[in-house]
Amino acid sequence: MKTDLDELMRTNDIDALLVTGPGQHNPALVYLTGGGHMTQADLIKKRGHPGILFHNSMERDEAAKSGLETRSYSNYPFMELLKETNQNRLQAIVLRYQKMLNDAGMTAGRIALYGRVDLENGFATFKALQEAMPALELVGYQDEDILLQAMATKDEQEISRIRQMGKITTQVVASVADFLSTRPVRNGILLDPCGEPLTIAEVKSRINLWLAEAGAENPEGAIFAIGHDAGVPHSIGNPADQLRLGQTIVFDIYPCEAGGGYFYDFTRTWCLGYAPDEAQALYENVLAVYQQIIAELKVNRLFKDYQLRTCELFEVQGHPTIKTNPETEAGYVHSLGHGVGLHIHERPFSGATATVSEILAPGSVITIEPGLYYPERGLGMRLEDTLWVRPDGNFEILAEYPLDLVIPVK
Amino acid sequence: MKTDLDELMRTNDIDALLVTGPGQHNPALVYLTGGGHMTQADLIKKRGHPGILFHNSMERDEAAKSGLETRSYSNYPFMELLKETNQNRLQAIVLRYQKMLNDAGMTAGRIALYGRVDLENGFATFKALQEAMPALELVGYQDEDILLQAMATKDEQEISRIRQMGKITTQVVASVADFLSTRPVRNGILLDPCGEPLTIAEVKSRINLWLAEAGAENPEGAIFAIGHDAGVPHSIGNPADQLRLGQTIVFDIYPCEAGGGYFYDFTRTWCLGYAPDEAQALYENVLAVYQQIIAELKVNRLFKDYQLRTCELFEVQGHPTIKTNPETEAGYVHSLGHGVGLHIHERPFSGATATVSEILAPGSVITIEPGLYYPERGLGMRLEDTLWVRPDGNFEILAEYPLDLVIPVK
Repeated sequence: MKTDLDELMRTNDIDALLVTGPGQHNPALVYLTGGGHMTQADLIKKRGHPGILFHNSMERDEAAKSGLETRSYSNYPFMELLKETNQNRLQAIVLRYQKMLNDAGMTAGRIALYGRVDLENGFATFKALQEAMPALELVGYQDEDILLQAMATKDEQEISRIRQMGKITTQVVASVADFLSTRPVRNGILLDPCGEPLTIAEVKSRINLWLAEAGAENPEGAIFAIGHDAGVPHSIGNPADQLRLGQTIVFDIYPCEAGGGYFYDFTRTWCLGYAPDEAQALYENVLAVYQQIIAELKVNRLFKDYQLRTCELFEVQGHPTIKTNPETEAGYVHSLGHGVGLHIHERPFSGATATVSEILAPGSVITIEPGLYYPERGLGMRLEDTLWVRPDGNFEILAEYPLDLVIPVK
Repeated sequence: MKTDLDELMRTNDIDALLVTGPGQHNPALVYLTGGGHMTQADLIKKRGHPGILFHNSMERDEAAKSGLETRSYSNYPFMELLKETNQNRLQAIVLRYQKMLNDAGMTAGRIALYGRVDLENGFATFKALQEAMPALELVGYQDEDILLQAMATKDEQEISRIRQMGKITTQVVASVADFLSTRPVRNGILLDPCGEPLTIAEVKSRINLWLAEAGAENPEGAIFAIGHDAGVPHSIGNPADQLRLGQTIVFDIYPCEAGGGYFYDFTRTWCLGYAPDEAQALYENVLAVYQQIIAELKVNRLFKDYQLRTCELFEVQGHPTIKTNPETEAGYVHSLGHGVGLHIHERPFSGATATVSEILAPGSVITIEPGLYYPERGLGMRLEDTLWVRPDGNFEILAEYPLDLVIPVK
């Protein structure tokens, strides 16, 4: 939780965080500032202090919204920095960081680097900064990232923002279901308002429209895949595909607050009009595992234990899984779920490669998303909800929505 | 231009590019793959070769759309990499890069790093990779970035995508103007369809909706700022502000293709119903400079010469500019324009800090956006269009739209 951050910095021997990049669509910076329309900013947060936010002079009003101490880059006139560095832009940027760190009281110690950047710039800048300030140690992370550790559990304010995104997400899903179920049908194909075959492109355009209308955005797109594509877990769907009765549709939607804030993650699998026997059978398998896992979830257990359990349950049903064959592309081929927050995928993870102890701690927000895929048979099936591990240890689906397979059409 | 890339690599002594990160909203990767819904990918492009795209097994269909040679990460089973590195995730990722580079035939030479990443991961990974492969030199850029040099001029296919975004942008602007001009007015304030005062939040929600409907997105938001906020160049506007007759509104809109493709950039300043004398006078000043600069533009000239020229023209009108006082927050306070492509701001730049020769080469796509700001007087004014420097040396506004100040209301 955010309140754990200073303690996490202490136990990891980190004296300060340096968070850089744009003010939006930049989880580390949004986490510590709340967001804000800034082209570029730098936050230097010493342990035990809320931090100083450095910003472009023109974006001072946006920076001020963070409630943090702010300081304009105009305090470090760039023309002078260029003069001091013989017009070397990289060295001028490094010199500005030296001055900002100095003003923030950070001239020695360990600094953890954060923020969404272009690698070409970030690698050049911080490699050069490290050389220029040998008394500092600049640190990156793959594992044991302290911000991700803090983010792994959410406070009440974060939960209410994710819950609101869940409400928006399920309302949009309901609008899509309503729209599909009121379409006329010709030769087994749904028709659009002009009487032409309805395509996935048209459905997706409505999804984006309804999300935008509700104040959300769709930075990672959405999956709306029918037939063969539904059998490939991350195929997003072919825009030109027509909506045909009796084919499985995997509809996976994961929007976030406008500007790049908190996400929600949700999947249903639908058949329009009716479900063929083999789709119905697959659905019943996935639904049974979904319900069994939800019923078995217990606070503070390892998330990956449920991944193993999911494999066992599917194997008892007779499906291949990645437990027996890690490279299988048929049966149960992915992990059970993941944390959701300012990243669509964040801690805790359930995958077999989770080397750290990813537990379902109180305050976690996770997805549960078992699925079965048979691309050769043109079949795919997944059910997914986002759940909150409440402080009392109970699991709560943050936005309830029916699990039905068949969308009736007229 | 993209066809210059191998030659740029040669003159900069770069043997390969390593481009990493997600498949969307990642300009370097979108530039070389065309885009595609990939959670994570790596492109290794040796000089003289189109490159190999490494991808998640589940995202093979999306990877295949690039038309490049593809190779699944499943060729490097992660469990085995973890075993080889004693369960050290960072070292396992580094080992995978070593194997991928080996398979791409890159075991020595200079590699330029690219891609949108989280700095904490990118810094850790490539610092460790550099240590593991001393025969390679990993290179970052601030200046003289070779991809940005290639991107600075566009081919016909890119122009047609930007032109299409211009068409969508101006259509949405026209829809906003139509909507405002047909609102009823009470006590000098526009009313929404429910008869309540119309707010900026409601206008922005419609902007997002219409953009989504047209297949565009708005990753950086839009500026719709009225009154005092219009006087602060990058204030995005207060959502609760009501739309009042006779106040200046700066409307700056910069959407991109859905999924994070090519951008367009456009600004108009409006007064609803009528323009007060001081707004009208300011408008005439900005319009005159806008028209003068557009008329004077010549191919292959330095972009920043026109920044100086803009300052001179505004100073003759009696306005302070950053030429005389780089820190001024009143008058003309920003740069004249910038390149537009897969980044909303890219080469060529017109700013005074442009240390490289940023010229208006054939194939460039640039904005021209003079403006005047008097925050103390609650006044701001900017006009902006996106222009293509055609192969024949002529400048073409990619989407024409009236420059009018006053939006009549009924």
